[in-house]
Amino acid sequence: MSIDLYDAMSTLRAVRRLRPDPIPDAVLERVLQAACWAPTGGNQQPWKVLVITDPERKAGLKEIYKAEWDPYVVNFLERVAGTPGEEQWRKVADSGNYLAEHLHETPAILLFLANPAFMAITDAKLDRISMVGGGSVYPAVQNAMLACVAEGLGCTLTTLHCFREDEVKELLGIPDGWATVGMVPIGYPLLKGHGPITRKPPSVMAARDNFDGSWP
Amino acid sequence: MSIDLYDAMSTLRAVRRLRPDPIPDAVLERVLQAACWAPTGGNQQPWKVLVITDPERKAGLKEIYKAEWDPYVVNFLERVAGTPGEEQWRKVADSGNYLAEHLHETPAILLFLANPAFMAITDAKLDRISMVGGGSVYPAVQNAMLACVAEGLGCTLTTLHCFREDEVKELLGIPDGWATVGMVPIGYPLLKGHGPITRKPPSVMAARDNFDGSWP
Repeated sequence: MSIDLYDAMSTLRAVRRLRPDPIPDAVLERVLQAACWAPTGGNQQPWKVLVITDPERKAGLKEIYKAEWDPYVVNFLERVAGTPGEEQWRKVADSGNYLAEHLHETPAILLFLANPAFMAITDAKLDRISMVGGGSVYPAVQNAMLACVAEGLGCTLTTLHCFREDEVKELLGIPDGWATVGMVPIGYPLLKGHGPITRKPPSVMAARDNFDGSWP
Repeated sequence: MSIDLYDAMSTLRAVRRLRPDPIPDAVLERVLQAACWAPTGGNQQPWKVLVITDPERKAGLKEIYKAEWDPYVVNFLERVAGTPGEEQWRKVADSGNYLAEHLHETPAILLFLANPAFMAITDAKLDRISMVGGGSVYPAVQNAMLACVAEGLGCTLTTLHCFREDEVKELLGIPDGWATVGMVPIGYPLLKGHGPITRKPPSVMAARDNFDGSWP
């Protein structure tokens, strides 16, 4: 499938309502190939992706995910109540509820793993939470999600399962040393799928030369 | 500029030899816009990017970077000595040396920042190093680098500066709470620039249903 780079990026939004229709392996292969093309520190590719299509394992992931989602969404709705964006956030919560209810029917769930033993994590010893390890796996996740746009597949990145990482690792035979850093349910969209997004632009997100600088 | 998504991904390689020629602001704007399109947890966009074009600040970053690169590359060459890939790794070291020597002449250095206060980091309390914070910033970095391919700009992601994050923050007026998670020097390539890459394919990187499974 062919799509312009900027068209893919500017329409990649969270698609949480997915049809159960299976995804051909040839299509999944292109999504996985996109992930494999991503750069990693020292070209080590210190990650792995599990493609979960087995009904029992999907059901297991659904139980794990829903156990975290249900209390999360209650708290989320309390936080947004009365705020200017409440209506929009309620729609997000609705689609999140749909995902949590139907995760086991998603045709494929990509679970991205990473192994810090194969990474040089330069911020590991700083007096703040480390993030640099993510630099050798989330580019692959982003490539996979952009490929989903090209292939007409809905998707979204979730990390709630991390609260129950031990259960996920048990379910999928993931050995010690491997971390579970992203779950990406993918499938053909039930509704419109990817489309225009609203994000803060460079004039807000960028600064020239100094933190307090302006762009452009 | 227009490029096919998969063409961009499959030719994004580390380009470390860059020409000093300036990059028009309109081109940089498209690279930054690509970053802004990236998804983030809860759509918070908990990151920021500094576009360093000022000669004095670039010189400061070069000093900081080179102070870490020089001992790093000595150690790196010792590690690869006598290994099958030694010749290839020596070329990587040469291009890294070039980057370290010429960083101050790079027309623009993108410094990506992230603020964990605006993130829900689900693996923060696990008994392993945290990586999930990176999930809300490295997709933006990857988008920016893919945009560089579209715009004919060379680039590479480096994180060595993290060893001297305090110095970087002092140099660029970065307040407490913000982390410096990626430095991406960009410029028009001195040599061939982006092109075909060699990476492990899905048959190696993916598994179906279980860690020990095979793909496809």
